[in-house]
Amino acid sequence: MIESSNEKTGTKRHVSTDTREHIKDTLLLMLKTSHFRTIRITALCREAHIARGTFYLYYNTIDDLLEDIINDSLQLINSMTPKEKQGSLKKLQIMLNQTGDEELPKDSSLFPPCHKYLELEKYRFLVKDADVAPIIAQKIHQYESPKIVPVLMKELNMKQDEAELLFKFIVNGSSSVNRSLLELKENEWYRLQKKILQFILGGLKCDQWS
Amino acid sequence: MIESSNEKTGTKRHVSTDTREHIKDTLLLMLKTSHFRTIRITALCREAHIARGTFYLYYNTIDDLLEDIINDSLQLINSMTPKEKQGSLKKLQIMLNQTGDEELPKDSSLFPPCHKYLELEKYRFLVKDADVAPIIAQKIHQYESPKIVPVLMKELNMKQDEAELLFKFIVNGSSSVNRSLLELKENEWYRLQKKILQFILGGLKCDQWS
Repeated sequence: MIESSNEKTGTKRHVSTDTREHIKDTLLLMLKTSHFRTIRITALCREAHIARGTFYLYYNTIDDLLEDIINDSLQLINSMTPKEKQGSLKKLQIMLNQTGDEELPKDSSLFPPCHKYLELEKYRFLVKDADVAPIIAQKIHQYESPKIVPVLMKELNMKQDEAELLFKFIVNGSSSVNRSLLELKENEWYRLQKKILQFILGGLKCDQWS
Repeated sequence: MIESSNEKTGTKRHVSTDTREHIKDTLLLMLKTSHFRTIRITALCREAHIARGTFYLYYNTIDDLLEDIINDSLQLINSMTPKEKQGSLKKLQIMLNQTGDEELPKDSSLFPPCHKYLELEKYRFLVKDADVAPIIAQKIHQYESPKIVPVLMKELNMKQDEAELLFKFIVNGSSSVNRSLLELKENEWYRLQKKILQFILGGLKCDQWS
């Protein structure tokens, strides 16, 4: 058996990715009906038909397991997102201005990660859980900050602490409205999402970016 | 003894405002060193030198007591804030544009409630507590929404649900950065606060308001 530690998440690694995926899928299934903070490892193992010791081969705590799931979802978002922030935000603003209020966007790959979360069929419902949503926001902030902060500093002539704080404001604001948008039909969701995006891009003065 | 119920907060009312104030001050004092969720009624009564029964003359739960304290802080903010939103946001934008980055604002009464919270000497430290901060944000949202939503609808030509969601975004975004600003010196705090306010007012296109 090969075991190693994943430094980024603090979770343990193991050769059997099948069991690992099975544990993740079991928690995701349980989260559809239970609050995260009420789920105990014992109940998870019962549900997954695994021994408690098996759980500990992969994770130290249930929080580690959740973090692993959220990292998966962010990797998925990452694969759907253009690498270059500066150009994509300008393109997003142009696209929003060109689509009518009730029309769906032509290319939602330009949406920022917080706004794209609701498109992930497998993970979107996670934003409903009041204890999970802030962790997702914090992770998005952590992943995206090194990419967006330098752009904000350059385009808005900001100091680093100012750009970091502004980005924190945007991620947490976006995260707080996601729950309200979750249950809406696609066109309603887009009508509201668009107003939020237009507010953000207007505040960032994207139309004046280089 | 006269007792009645305060419908708004669900708390009990009583003739002795002194005892009520004493209970509130005791919780505020305890919150300087303890997390809200770890404070029990028994410990609060011990600290306040009152009988447990006395506590229940005024409040049903410790959450009721916290709500009463937050309501006090919002009343204080309300007394410091111009009633008319539309004009005051335009005035705020003009003032921000006229003050240098390291300069303190001439009239911080124009600041929106979330941003003004840090000026309340007695209550500002409350935003540090991760369980209390969202309750403050929710209360500010509830108090301010009826005043600001109609203005956003009119000035940005928005539907009610759009204006409500945007205002939720702004309140929660502001609330999330308050904690980072809490420990800063006055001029540093203002430099960062100003960038956030300029982003918000830019996103709201305040310079085009009627």
